[in-house]
Amino acid sequence: MKGEFALIAEIAAALGAPDDDELWIGDDAAIVHPPQGWMLLSADTVVAGVHADLAFTRLDDFGWKAMCASVSDIAAMGGVPSQALVTVTAPSGTDIALLYSGVSAAARHLECPVVGGDLSNGPEVVVTVAVTGSCPGPPVRRSGARPGDRIWVTGPLGASAAGLRRLRCGEARYDNVLEVGSSVRAHARPTARLREGSAARLAGASAMIDVSDGLAADLGHIADASGVGFRLDHLPVHPEATLDEAVGGGEDFALVFCAPPEAGLDESFIGLHPPIMIGVCVEDRSERTLLSRPLEAPGWQHTW
Amino acid sequence: MKGEFALIAEIAAALGAPDDDELWIGDDAAIVHPPQGWMLLSADTVVAGVHADLAFTRLDDFGWKAMCASVSDIAAMGGVPSQALVTVTAPSGTDIALLYSGVSAAARHLECPVVGGDLSNGPEVVVTVAVTGSCPGPPVRRSGARPGDRIWVTGPLGASAAGLRRLRCGEARYDNVLEVGSSVRAHARPTARLREGSAARLAGASAMIDVSDGLAADLGHIADASGVGFRLDHLPVHPEATLDEAVGGGEDFALVFCAPPEAGLDESFIGLHPPIMIGVCVEDRSERTLLSRPLEAPGWQHTW
Repeated sequence: MKGEFALIAEIAAALGAPDDDELWIGDDAAIVHPPQGWMLLSADTVVAGVHADLAFTRLDDFGWKAMCASVSDIAAMGGVPSQALVTVTAPSGTDIALLYSGVSAAARHLECPVVGGDLSNGPEVVVTVAVTGSCPGPPVRRSGARPGDRIWVTGPLGASAAGLRRLRCGEARYDNVLEVGSSVRAHARPTARLREGSAARLAGASAMIDVSDGLAADLGHIADASGVGFRLDHLPVHPEATLDEAVGGGEDFALVFCAPPEAGLDESFIGLHPPIMIGVCVEDRSERTLLSRPLEAPGWQHTW
Repeated sequence: MKGEFALIAEIAAALGAPDDDELWIGDDAAIVHPPQGWMLLSADTVVAGVHADLAFTRLDDFGWKAMCASVSDIAAMGGVPSQALVTVTAPSGTDIALLYSGVSAAARHLECPVVGGDLSNGPEVVVTVAVTGSCPGPPVRRSGARPGDRIWVTGPLGASAAGLRRLRCGEARYDNVLEVGSSVRAHARPTARLREGSAARLAGASAMIDVSDGLAADLGHIADASGVGFRLDHLPVHPEATLDEAVGGGEDFALVFCAPPEAGLDESFIGLHPPIMIGVCVEDRSERTLLSRPLEAPGWQHTW
């Protein structure tokens, strides 16, 4: 059994220290240099039993996913993450060090240092990650799509949902996690499309969002905010996923964005997987179709 | 029963919108102007059943307390809060609107707008508040206290613990909450000592912390970080509190700070309650005494 203060000291040592005059973990608040340009702020919570099933998600992957979910929101604005604050509540007996090893790995992968947070007992594992980010130019909002804009996604959809399904029914095993491109890896170790988000912003994207609740729901958010409809004629489905998983499965963290036909996507995506065009924005707000059929948003909502 | 997206729209309307070109709730991330000077970052979690007993804490007060606990960390650096990200997990049936009415009231009181966050189902009410802040000059760390520095607190201690005890044993009722100066009010609606924190910084405070775990534990953090001991000869106890509550009771959010004897406290605290001197920092790190007796830190720790 370990106490809070000893554990925080261990975590702080593992997470690393600043190499300049900043101060990270260890005081009432972290002291950092403010970003240049616009500042971005976002927070996401991942709750065991709600967003992830601990029977099929190791605690390090749980920590990794919490980091990615938050940083993905910065990617969806076309920004770059600066710092993360990670707060964890967990019942006694939880392997906090394992959880933080995933947080720490994600922080390195995403180049987003953890500069503070909080640690508390609680009845369930809940990880909340607040992130700051920066954007040298105007961030890409949800509200800028216009009729005629093309709609793009950064890659095939449905992988995370497919991975969870395959784990649950025994088709895949959790130790296959490292197989690049597999749905289990997409479920256990998703990533945030930071380079793609910046590329889309630089190419002149008019609206962008990350697929966290499912394509239909998330593209619906763009349509609501922009006052447009959409007509999809193509949907790239991950090879292990079903069409329903591609439409409704969340937590892919692919980016979906709109851009005028003249946007210079080819140039700004040099060196990255090229985005895939899936449709067009239309003036009729009531149109939300895939291959001429209504695209329902089965995306699940929390209720109170 | 209300869905997440409808509830978020209601909360966003109640929390208010920016009056310039910033973007708060409603996109993947908030877009704000970065602060001038140093940027401060902190996050705190409040868990029902761990940090607060919902039998004696209304949900609006729970939300208020979560905001204050985080903003108090900015006060303890001598800074000013800029923005808050509030994430809530709660079981179905929780009165989310009541909870956010307290968050919103605290945001106005502390002049710290809520610009984003997250809302999720979960087995228990957990509120996490991440705050950004700014500091025009060097923030006051825990590590700057030197032997000979005087030790000050911003007011009497133990009120919050006394308030909870009086509620639990039936000596006080929760609807007395508005009686200014009462321990029940201190428990239900604590405040963050922002003006006092700035005044201490301007006067040349060498180290500062807020009393969230209890004076003995929190002054211990200053002593650990600064490499000094301390000798207390006075302790201001709230009229409704016991000495044990003043030494060990957390969540008072009073500030305790150290300053060299020549610091200009009188001047910088003009218009505020004057701070109270309680002792002196000493060279012998092993000395931690109150009236010549060892000051134990009964402060409770989370364990895993």
